[in-house]
Amino acid sequence: MVLSPPKASRRIQAIEVGSQLLMALVRHRQPMSLTTLAKAANMTPSKAHPYLASFGAVGLTEQDPVSGNYGLGPFSFQMGLVCLQQQNPIKLAIPEITSLAARIEQTVVLAVWGTHGPTVVYLGDSNRPIHVNLRPGSVMSMLGTATGQVFSAFLPVKLVETALARELKDEAVLAQNTSKSALQQHEATLAEVRQRGLARVEGFPIPGISAFSAPVFDNKQSLVLVITATGSSGSFDSSWNGPIARELQACAQTVSYRLGYAGK
Amino acid sequence: MVLSPPKASRRIQAIEVGSQLLMALVRHRQPMSLTTLAKAANMTPSKAHPYLASFGAVGLTEQDPVSGNYGLGPFSFQMGLVCLQQQNPIKLAIPEITSLAARIEQTVVLAVWGTHGPTVVYLGDSNRPIHVNLRPGSVMSMLGTATGQVFSAFLPVKLVETALARELKDEAVLAQNTSKSALQQHEATLAEVRQRGLARVEGFPIPGISAFSAPVFDNKQSLVLVITATGSSGSFDSSWNGPIARELQACAQTVSYRLGYAGK
Repeated sequence: MVLSPPKASRRIQAIEVGSQLLMALVRHRQPMSLTTLAKAANMTPSKAHPYLASFGAVGLTEQDPVSGNYGLGPFSFQMGLVCLQQQNPIKLAIPEITSLAARIEQTVVLAVWGTHGPTVVYLGDSNRPIHVNLRPGSVMSMLGTATGQVFSAFLPVKLVETALARELKDEAVLAQNTSKSALQQHEATLAEVRQRGLARVEGFPIPGISAFSAPVFDNKQSLVLVITATGSSGSFDSSWNGPIARELQACAQTVSYRLGYAGK
Repeated sequence: MVLSPPKASRRIQAIEVGSQLLMALVRHRQPMSLTTLAKAANMTPSKAHPYLASFGAVGLTEQDPVSGNYGLGPFSFQMGLVCLQQQNPIKLAIPEITSLAARIEQTVVLAVWGTHGPTVVYLGDSNRPIHVNLRPGSVMSMLGTATGQVFSAFLPVKLVETALARELKDEAVLAQNTSKSALQQHEATLAEVRQRGLARVEGFPIPGISAFSAPVFDNKQSLVLVITATGSSGSFDSSWNGPIARELQACAQTVSYRLGYAGK
């Protein structure tokens, strides 16, 4: 879905032009000379200067008195801090996964790391609901599910080891979700998940159900959510470069960006 | 010192007018309806709307699709995160205390919490240098100095207790800096420091030298720096409402604001 811009009839061009300077400062991540900054924003220095004077007057930018370089100012910081305080990963992810579920026509599951491991907090249903017993509050296997594999691949090792040890002591979990061969190749699987940024299961642990899972990171570069697309294997394109994999990954990256993830 | 605004000859009025909307969103700390937001920025809704359309187009603001309320957008968050990454409390404080030292004509000392306790990292000298053995790297008494009292009053209790216990075992420190009566009234002193946001010593531990110290907090509401104004008791106005106390406090508040402190 492409978002259409707000109705263009009444806009303030100076805001949109001037913002190019702020965007260049964010991309560059450190103060720049007028010449460098103007160039990065596709302007001449003489065009950029009055914008910077006005951004400076409100604290969106500031000029270093020694070097003369322009950087983001104290008011930019205040805006970011207000955003940080309002940050709610689940609330932020819900509209994104609702739209993803409609686009790929598969069920989309949102999971967080709960006290008992990977825990479903939200289900975005499509027109093709899957008939599995999955609902908010469900705890998922670390070994057997794509969701669990993403948590296993990206959470701190200690946390993963503890959860895995507990899971391997739980006979019900074992019978339901894992096989000896799965356990043996577990490390290789996690290495692949880290490399691809995506986990996949096909017809296992639940016959006939496939899934992709992708990680969502926050501004501290920590895993905060796992988004999973899942459906009946017959209608689920499980190729690594298929539309489901790509759309899911784009969705997880959008949410990560919104949470301030700086990327790798 | 009042900073003069950038030369007004060439500015972009739309930036400065529109920023009033961003400032209202920062003050309010949560999304607002168009009517409420416009009012908070002293505009009519019809004047505010085109600004918000343009801020929205660049991600500085966004509109909640359900409530229709306007809030800060993902680009505001990115700007704040870049500021957070660039944050350097000492670098930020140095120009402020240099200017403070000139204004109050007293020595101004910047201290951080080091591995051995309150540690001087910078000295801003005035035209009236004091003749005490204080230089970057000096560790100051927790009990006997105004700097130490501010750390004692605002750091986590565990940290303070450990440092204080160590100090009380150190005979040299004890002989130099503390008296039995000082120790006895220590808790009362710290309560006063917390209440005033300012610590004061007069002619003690060093006869003839007085000092005020003020805390600097960061965006996590943690104490990160202590700024101390100190001088010969004869030329040092040590009244709680005198110019030195007021200027010092204003300086510490300015640095705190720049570090994202939300205030109390």
